[in-house]
Amino acid sequence: MRESVRNDVARPSEVVDLGTKFQLVTTDWSPRIVAESNGWEIKLVRARGEFVWHRHEVDEVFLVFAGELTIQLAGEPEVHLQPGQLYVVRRGIEHRPHSAAGCHLVLLEPAGVINTGNTSGPLTAVDSWI
Amino acid sequence: MRESVRNDVARPSEVVDLGTKFQLVTTDWSPRIVAESNGWEIKLVRARGEFVWHRHEVDEVFLVFAGELTIQLAGEPEVHLQPGQLYVVRRGIEHRPHSAAGCHLVLLEPAGVINTGNTSGPLTAVDSWI
Repeated sequence: MRESVRNDVARPSEVVDLGTKFQLVTTDWSPRIVAESNGWEIKLVRARGEFVWHRHEVDEVFLVFAGELTIQLAGEPEVHLQPGQLYVVRRGIEHRPHSAAGCHLVLLEPAGVINTGNTSGPLTAVDSWI
Repeated sequence: MRESVRNDVARPSEVVDLGTKFQLVTTDWSPRIVAESNGWEIKLVRARGEFVWHRHEVDEVFLVFAGELTIQLAGEPEVHLQPGQLYVVRRGIEHRPHSAAGCHLVLLEPAGVINTGNTSGPLTAVDSWI
Protein backbone atom coordinates (compact mmCIF):
# COMPACT_ATOMS: atom_id res chain seq x y z
CA MET A 1 0.00 0.00 0.00
CA ARG A 2 1.28 3.48 -0.78
CA GLU A 3 2.63 5.21 2.28
CA SER A 4 0.85 8.47 1.52
CA VAL A 5 -2.48 6.67 1.36
CA ARG A 6 -1.84 4.70 4.53
CA ASN A 7 -1.56 7.88 6.57
CA ASP A 8 -4.41 9.87 5.06
CA VAL A 9 -7.20 9.23 7.50
CA ALA A 10 -5.54 8.96 10.87
CA ARG A 11 -3.27 11.97 10.54
CA PRO A 12 -4.43 14.69 12.93
CA SER A 13 -4.16 18.39 12.18
CA GLU A 14 -1.04 19.95 13.62
CA VAL A 15 0.89 23.14 13.03
CA VAL A 16 3.41 22.49 10.25
CA ASP A 17 6.49 24.72 10.27
CA LEU A 18 7.83 24.55 6.73
CA GLY A 19 11.35 25.71 7.63
CA THR A 20 11.68 23.06 10.32
CA LYS A 21 10.27 20.35 8.08
CA PHE A 22 12.68 21.26 5.26
CA GLN A 23 15.57 20.46 7.62
CA LEU A 24 14.31 16.86 7.60
CA VAL A 25 14.37 16.62 3.80
CA THR A 26 17.77 15.13 3.09
CA THR A 27 17.37 13.59 -0.36
CA ASP A 28 17.18 15.69 -3.53
CA TRP A 29 14.05 15.37 -5.70
CA SER A 30 12.31 13.03 -3.25
CA PRO A 31 9.03 14.67 -2.17
CA ARG A 32 8.05 14.40 1.51
CA ILE A 33 4.43 14.92 2.54
CA VAL A 34 3.68 17.39 5.36
CA ALA A 35 -0.09 17.86 5.08
CA GLU A 36 -3.23 16.42 3.48
CA SER A 37 -6.42 18.30 2.72
CA ASN A 38 -9.45 17.18 0.70
CA GLY A 39 -7.39 14.50 -1.03
CA TRP A 40 -4.57 16.87 -1.90
CA GLU A 41 -1.09 16.64 -0.50
CA ILE A 42 1.40 19.35 0.36
CA LYS A 43 4.91 18.10 -0.28
CA LEU A 44 8.37 19.48 0.36
CA VAL A 45 11.12 18.94 -2.18
CA ARG A 46 14.83 19.68 -1.95
CA ALA A 47 15.80 20.27 -5.57
CA ARG A 48 19.36 20.43 -6.83
CA GLY A 49 20.66 20.01 -10.36
CA GLU A 50 18.40 18.78 -13.16
CA PHE A 51 15.33 16.61 -12.82
CA VAL A 52 13.97 14.57 -15.76
CA TRP A 53 11.50 15.57 -18.48
CA HIS A 54 8.06 14.23 -17.61
CA ARG A 55 4.36 15.09 -17.50
CA HIS A 56 1.40 14.43 -15.20
CA GLU A 57 -2.32 13.85 -15.75
CA VAL A 58 -3.09 16.61 -13.22
CA ASP A 59 -2.08 20.22 -12.63
CA GLU A 60 0.86 20.71 -10.27
CA VAL A 61 1.56 23.85 -8.18
CA PHE A 62 5.22 24.77 -7.59
CA LEU A 63 5.90 27.30 -4.80
CA VAL A 64 9.51 28.23 -4.06
CA PHE A 65 10.30 28.53 -0.34
CA ALA A 66 14.05 29.23 -0.58
CA GLY A 67 16.56 29.42 -3.42
CA GLU A 68 15.68 29.62 -7.10
CA LEU A 69 14.00 27.16 -9.45
CA THR A 70 13.78 27.02 -13.23
CA ILE A 71 11.08 24.96 -14.92
CA GLN A 72 11.63 24.10 -18.56
CA LEU A 73 8.35 23.65 -20.44
CA ALA A 74 7.98 21.88 -23.79
CA GLY A 75 7.08 24.43 -26.44
CA GLU A 76 6.96 27.38 -24.01
CA PRO A 77 9.51 29.74 -22.47
CA GLU A 78 11.09 28.42 -19.31
CA VAL A 79 9.87 29.81 -16.01
CA HIS A 80 12.10 31.22 -13.25
CA LEU A 81 10.84 31.18 -9.68
CA GLN A 82 12.24 32.95 -6.63
CA PRO A 83 11.11 32.61 -3.00
CA GLY A 84 7.43 33.46 -2.57
CA GLN A 85 6.66 32.85 -6.25
CA LEU A 86 4.45 30.08 -7.57
CA TYR A 87 3.58 28.58 -10.94
CA VAL A 88 0.98 26.02 -12.01
CA VAL A 89 2.29 23.45 -14.50
CA ARG A 90 -0.83 22.38 -16.38
CA ARG A 91 -1.70 18.72 -16.86
CA GLY A 92 -0.13 17.12 -19.89
CA ILE A 93 2.64 19.70 -20.26
CA GLU A 94 6.11 18.13 -20.45
CA HIS A 95 8.37 19.87 -17.98
CA ARG A 96 11.76 19.61 -16.34
CA PRO A 97 12.63 21.49 -13.14
CA HIS A 98 16.22 22.36 -12.39
CA SER A 99 18.09 24.36 -9.80
CA ALA A 100 21.84 24.81 -10.22
CA ALA A 101 22.41 26.12 -6.70
CA GLY A 102 19.61 24.12 -5.07
CA CYS A 103 16.26 25.22 -3.70
CA HIS A 104 13.47 24.32 -1.30
CA LEU A 105 10.17 23.85 -3.06
CA VAL A 106 6.56 23.30 -1.93
CA LEU A 107 4.38 21.14 -4.21
CA LEU A 108 0.57 21.15 -4.08
CA GLU A 109 -1.09 18.31 -5.96
CA PRO A 110 -3.66 15.55 -5.66
CA ALA A 111 -2.56 12.62 -3.49
CA GLY A 112 -0.82 9.82 -5.34
CA VAL A 113 1.06 11.84 -7.95
CA ILE A 114 4.43 10.24 -8.69
CA ASN A 115 7.30 12.70 -9.03
CA THR A 116 8.50 11.43 -12.42
CA GLY A 117 4.98 11.31 -13.90
CA ASN A 118 4.80 9.29 -17.11
CA THR A 119 8.42 8.17 -16.81
CA SER A 120 10.30 6.09 -14.28
CA GLY A 121 13.95 5.87 -13.42
CA PRO A 122 16.51 6.41 -10.68
CA LEU A 123 14.77 9.62 -9.51
CA THR A 124 11.31 8.04 -9.15
CA ALA A 125 10.38 8.25 -5.47
CA VAL A 126 7.78 6.82 -3.11
CA ASP A 127 6.51 9.85 -1.22
CA SER A 128 6.43 9.48 2.56
CA TRP A 129 5.37 11.73 5.43
CA ILE A 130 7.71 13.72 7.59
CA MET B 1 -22.23 33.46 -12.17
CA ARG B 2 -19.55 33.31 -9.54
CA GLU B 3 -16.50 35.29 -10.55
CA SER B 4 -14.09 32.56 -9.49
CA VAL B 5 -15.84 30.08 -11.76
CA ARG B 6 -16.02 32.49 -14.67
CA ASN B 7 -12.24 32.71 -14.80
CA ASP B 8 -11.37 29.05 -14.22
CA VAL B 9 -10.88 27.78 -17.72
CA ALA B 10 -9.36 30.63 -19.64
CA ARG B 11 -6.80 31.69 -17.07
CA PRO B 12 -3.30 30.93 -18.38
CA SER B 13 -0.43 29.86 -16.17
CA GLU B 14 1.75 32.73 -15.11
CA VAL B 15 4.31 33.31 -12.40
CA VAL B 16 2.51 34.55 -9.29
CA ASP B 17 4.58 36.63 -6.88
CA LEU B 18 2.77 36.41 -3.58
CA GLY B 19 4.39 39.52 -2.07
CA THR B 20 3.39 41.63 -5.07
CA LYS B 21 -0.13 40.23 -5.12
CA PHE B 22 -0.61 40.91 -1.42
CA GLN B 23 -0.03 44.61 -2.15
CA LEU B 24 -3.23 44.49 -4.21
CA VAL B 25 -5.30 43.07 -1.35
CA THR B 26 -6.80 46.15 0.24
CA THR B 27 -9.85 44.80 2.08
CA ASP B 28 -9.58 42.77 5.29
CA TRP B 29 -11.05 39.25 5.31
CA SER B 30 -11.97 39.36 1.60
CA PRO B 31 -10.15 36.51 -0.17
CA ARG B 32 -8.62 37.23 -3.59
CA ILE B 33 -7.83 34.35 -5.94
CA VAL B 34 -4.33 34.16 -7.47
CA ALA B 35 -4.21 30.64 -8.91
CA GLU B 36 -6.38 27.66 -9.79
CA SER B 37 -5.26 24.05 -10.01
CA ASN B 38 -7.36 20.90 -10.38
CA GLY B 39 -10.44 22.72 -9.15
CA TRP B 40 -8.66 24.17 -6.13
CA GLU B 41 -8.05 27.83 -5.61
CA ILE B 42 -5.15 29.60 -3.94
CA LYS B 43 -6.41 32.74 -2.24
CA LEU B 44 -4.75 35.64 -0.46
CA VAL B 45 -6.33 37.15 2.61
CA ARG B 46 -5.43 40.27 4.55
CA ALA B 47 -6.63 39.49 8.06
CA ARG B 48 -6.97 42.02 10.83
CA GLY B 49 -8.99 41.82 14.03
CA GLU B 50 -11.54 39.07 14.57
CA PHE B 51 -13.41 37.11 11.93
CA VAL B 52 -16.68 35.27 12.70
CA TRP B 53 -17.24 31.75 14.00
CA HIS B 54 -18.10 29.45 11.08
CA ARG B 55 -17.47 26.05 9.55
CA HIS B 56 -17.06 24.58 6.05
CA GLU B 57 -17.99 21.28 4.43
CA VAL B 58 -14.39 20.89 3.22
CA ASP B 59 -10.92 21.04 4.74
CA GLU B 60 -9.19 24.42 4.54
CA VAL B 61 -5.42 25.03 4.57
CA PHE B 62 -4.16 28.20 6.28
CA LEU B 63 -0.56 29.25 5.50
CA VAL B 64 0.77 32.46 7.06
CA PHE B 65 2.89 34.57 4.71
CA ALA B 66 3.54 37.55 7.01
CA GLY B 67 2.42 38.52 10.51
CA GLU B 68 0.76 36.19 12.97
CA LEU B 69 -2.62 34.46 12.98
CA THR B 70 -4.58 32.76 15.73
CA ILE B 71 -7.32 30.27 14.88
CA GLN B 72 -9.83 29.50 17.61
CA LEU B 73 -11.28 26.00 17.26
CA ALA B 74 -14.48 24.79 18.93
CA GLY B 75 -13.58 22.22 21.57
CA GLU B 76 -9.84 22.29 20.83
CA PRO B 77 -6.93 24.52 21.88
CA GLU B 78 -6.46 27.55 19.65
CA VAL B 79 -3.69 27.46 17.08
CA HIS B 80 -1.03 30.13 16.64
CA LEU B 81 0.65 30.51 13.24
CA GLN B 82 3.73 32.49 12.30
CA PRO B 83 5.16 33.08 8.81
CA GLY B 84 5.96 29.83 7.05
CA GLN B 85 3.59 27.82 9.25
CA LEU B 86 0.43 26.11 8.05
CA TYR B 87 -2.55 24.38 9.61
CA VAL B 88 -5.41 22.36 8.13
CA VAL B 89 -8.81 23.19 9.63
CA ARG B 90 -10.80 20.01 9.11
CA ARG B 91 -14.25 20.05 7.57
CA GLY B 92 -17.06 20.61 10.02
CA ILE B 93 -14.87 22.18 12.71
CA GLU B 94 -16.19 25.54 13.92
CA HIS B 95 -13.36 28.04 13.84
CA ARG B 96 -12.65 31.75 14.13
CA PRO B 97 -9.42 33.29 12.84
CA HIS B 98 -8.13 36.49 14.36
CA SER B 99 -5.04 38.63 14.11
CA ALA B 100 -4.70 41.60 16.44
CA ALA B 101 -1.81 43.18 14.55
CA GLY B 102 -2.87 41.96 11.10
CA CYS B 103 -1.38 39.29 8.85
CA HIS B 104 -1.12 38.08 5.28
CA LEU B 105 -2.55 34.62 4.83
CA VAL B 106 -2.63 32.09 1.96
CA LEU B 107 -5.72 29.84 1.78
CA LEU B 108 -5.82 26.59 -0.18
CA GLU B 109 -9.28 25.14 -0.70
CA PRO B 110 -11.65 23.78 -3.32
CA ALA B 111 -13.09 26.41 -5.64
CA GLY B 112 -16.34 27.94 -4.51
CA VAL B 113 -15.79 27.96 -0.77
CA ILE B 114 -17.39 31.03 0.81
CA ASN B 115 -15.30 32.72 3.49
CA THR B 116 -18.00 32.73 6.16
CA GLY B 117 -18.98 29.09 5.53
CA ASN B 118 -22.32 28.17 7.09
CA THR B 119 -22.99 31.74 8.16
CA SER B 120 -23.47 34.97 6.29
CA GLY B 121 -23.10 38.57 7.32
CA PRO B 122 -21.18 41.77 6.68
CA LEU B 123 -17.89 39.87 6.23
CA THR B 124 -19.25 37.44 3.63
CA ALA B 125 -17.30 38.07 0.42
CA VAL B 126 -17.49 37.16 -3.25
CA ASP B 127 -14.00 36.00 -4.11
CA SER B 128 -12.47 37.57 -7.21
CA TRP B 129 -9.14 37.20 -9.02
CA ILE B 130 -6.25 39.59 -8.72
